[in-house]
Amino acid sequence: MNAEIIAVGSELLTPTKIDTNSLWLTDQLNTLGIEVVLKSIVADDRPRLTAQIAAAFERSDLVLITGGLGPTEDDVTRDAAAAALGIGQTFQPKIADQIAALFVRLGRKTMAENNKRQAFVLDGAEVLANPRGTAPGQWIAKNGRVVILLPGPPREMKPLFTEQCCPRIEKLLPPIVIRTRFYRVAGIGESDLDQLIAPVYTKYTNPVTTILASPGDIHIHLRARCTTAAEAETLLTEVAEPILELLGDRVYSDDGADLETTVGRKLKAKNAWLAVAESCTGGLIGERITSVAGSSNYFRGGFLTYTAQMKHEMVGVPLEMLAQHTAVSEPVVKAMASGARIKTKADYALSVTGYAGPEGGDDGTPAGLVWIGLATPVGVEANKFQLWGDRERVRSVAGIYALDWLRKKLSERS
Amino acid sequence: MNAEIIAVGSELLTPTKIDTNSLWLTDQLNTLGIEVVLKSIVADDRPRLTAQIAAAFERSDLVLITGGLGPTEDDVTRDAAAAALGIGQTFQPKIADQIAALFVRLGRKTMAENNKRQAFVLDGAEVLANPRGTAPGQWIAKNGRVVILLPGPPREMKPLFTEQCCPRIEKLLPPIVIRTRFYRVAGIGESDLDQLIAPVYTKYTNPVTTILASPGDIHIHLRARCTTAAEAETLLTEVAEPILELLGDRVYSDDGADLETTVGRKLKAKNAWLAVAESCTGGLIGERITSVAGSSNYFRGGFLTYTAQMKHEMVGVPLEMLAQHTAVSEPVVKAMASGARIKTKADYALSVTGYAGPEGGDDGTPAGLVWIGLATPVGVEANKFQLWGDRERVRSVAGIYALDWLRKKLSERS
Repeated sequence: MNAEIIAVGSELLTPTKIDTNSLWLTDQLNTLGIEVVLKSIVADDRPRLTAQIAAAFERSDLVLITGGLGPTEDDVTRDAAAAALGIGQTFQPKIADQIAALFVRLGRKTMAENNKRQAFVLDGAEVLANPRGTAPGQWIAKNGRVVILLPGPPREMKPLFTEQCCPRIEKLLPPIVIRTRFYRVAGIGESDLDQLIAPVYTKYTNPVTTILASPGDIHIHLRARCTTAAEAETLLTEVAEPILELLGDRVYSDDGADLETTVGRKLKAKNAWLAVAESCTGGLIGERITSVAGSSNYFRGGFLTYTAQMKHEMVGVPLEMLAQHTAVSEPVVKAMASGARIKTKADYALSVTGYAGPEGGDDGTPAGLVWIGLATPVGVEANKFQLWGDRERVRSVAGIYALDWLRKKLSERS
Repeated sequence: MNAEIIAVGSELLTPTKIDTNSLWLTDQLNTLGIEVVLKSIVADDRPRLTAQIAAAFERSDLVLITGGLGPTEDDVTRDAAAAALGIGQTFQPKIADQIAALFVRLGRKTMAENNKRQAFVLDGAEVLANPRGTAPGQWIAKNGRVVILLPGPPREMKPLFTEQCCPRIEKLLPPIVIRTRFYRVAGIGESDLDQLIAPVYTKYTNPVTTILASPGDIHIHLRARCTTAAEAETLLTEVAEPILELLGDRVYSDDGADLETTVGRKLKAKNAWLAVAESCTGGLIGERITSVAGSSNYFRGGFLTYTAQMKHEMVGVPLEMLAQHTAVSEPVVKAMASGARIKTKADYALSVTGYAGPEGGDDGTPAGLVWIGLATPVGVEANKFQLWGDRERVRSVAGIYALDWLRKKLSERS
């Protein structure tokens, strides 16, 4: 079985916009053992989109179309799909009612008239409920092929695909078993990691190994396709074991959990409380920690000590220390961590101070220099990093290094 | 004139690979005033690629094809283009000699036999010399349309396009100028906005209006194409003025600046300092404010008061108030804002407390209920919002509403 993905939207045809939906869908489809043979991005243009859908339906088993299901005149996917497949559309009052109910729940007075466009369903299509937005998806089976209409916003599209499309697609597939392993790694660069583990995984075409990197954080996917689950698991273990051996404690998750979730679990397991004192990251670490539901069980709070004065007043860094060593220094980052820990009565406290850029320090310290502090029940430590990249990258990587250090500390036997 | 880009290569259809060539080419083409109306990525698959090129040639003025010009069996672009356009190919000994010479220059002994495949040229095509690689590009003009074959490696493709394609394309273009306007809007939903301004912009096909929405934040692009700059600006003003009139103070930026940059500029202009006290957003607002370089000129810092105890200790919310009204209440959010403002000696302070979800309050308050507070030099106010969506959306929209409220407050005449 092969698949083709069509992304709809003129905004996706600008020089800066990346169609991330199709990357994610490719990953999902590959996991199901389905190859993506063609991807396209089409403007909000009825005739062009109609032609592209018709051609896709002609040549591919599965056609996924993302976007263009909104309420405006620009949203042409429903009409184009209907025209390409030669089937009609019917207004479904029940869907209109659901959209209207959503509007009420949102506290808006009434549904805008044009939202009714979203209640049209292609004849014979199954409606794929989209509780996270107003436009439902649609599943159209015809001539042994399937066309799926999906909403464009990733936060609506992804759960809808996982919950409603994957089970339906699996029913269409021959009985093959796919098993996967998924590891997340911090504290090593992509090429270093690849150099380390390539001698292992390149020996195998099954399982397939995929390495996905973002700054400071790497995902390793192993995917085995076999006729039995036992065979797949054996193959996966054969490859995974030496990889895990090589990576050691740099692997922070084997179930997809992100770094903040992993840290949260460890804090909870220890019944420990965390606090932060952030300068150059300005709240990024607190934001990540509290992005996890239930973080109020282990995150007490923190201080955004953006100015020197605030470092003094909020977490008690001595003014003389700031004057003597500057705000970006080992004693200050330690005092920040200790101060935050004491003020909040937390067990652990992370602190960050540095030059996120583009400017460095007045004293010639380069941008990207970041101190991270960690106060624990037994003391306080600090580490210095010279990070590269723009302001956004420096802040993001500093946050990852801080969380990863805490993770390792929480894993130590005490 | 419009263009379509086809990238060739199965490796571009994996979950991690981004076709950066097409982004770069889109930028180049836009600069020439040419709109990209469709992009596709096709596997190394002769029939599919032939069909895609034929369809592209049918519907678009300019078809750019990158990749698939190499020496192996997998490299099917030449053959597919010839088949799609119904023209033959001829072996050109001169090109074979150039490739052989390049091999000598690179210190390789002899040219591999299959490199001779790269010396086939479509009949009637202009050869686009590629001094940085072995595969030359090709420029095929037919029926008033143009198909361009470009090498896939960016370091070969980019200079070849700039040096050899741009001048040829410019000769085909009517003297045209493109002018754009770009507005960012907060505090209104996409369909409400569209319903409000559609009566204005749908009257015009030039300028083209595009509306792009993410939760709580909308971008409006106007793009006029005319023979003179003056004419384009007049048209843009004709459409933009009534749109701006309808949107009023919901428009926060007309130069692409994001909300945190806009807020930062206003604080700086007033010589005012900001502080925050964040509960359910956990640092998100501080993170956004400090993502702007130079924010140390107006952001003093903040408090992540994640627990009730921290709301009391860090910003002085009375314990009785917390007990009587709960942490998610008007008096508490006001006390948080006032407390943060006083403790940091800032001029303005934003506070947020709410249920980000998935859980609501123990007292039955639903998830998504968020109080935002704003303390200013003249007093403190609070607003309640019932937001929908998951934890991530609720936090993100709460942050936008808080920043947008501050923006409006800073715009008031005092």
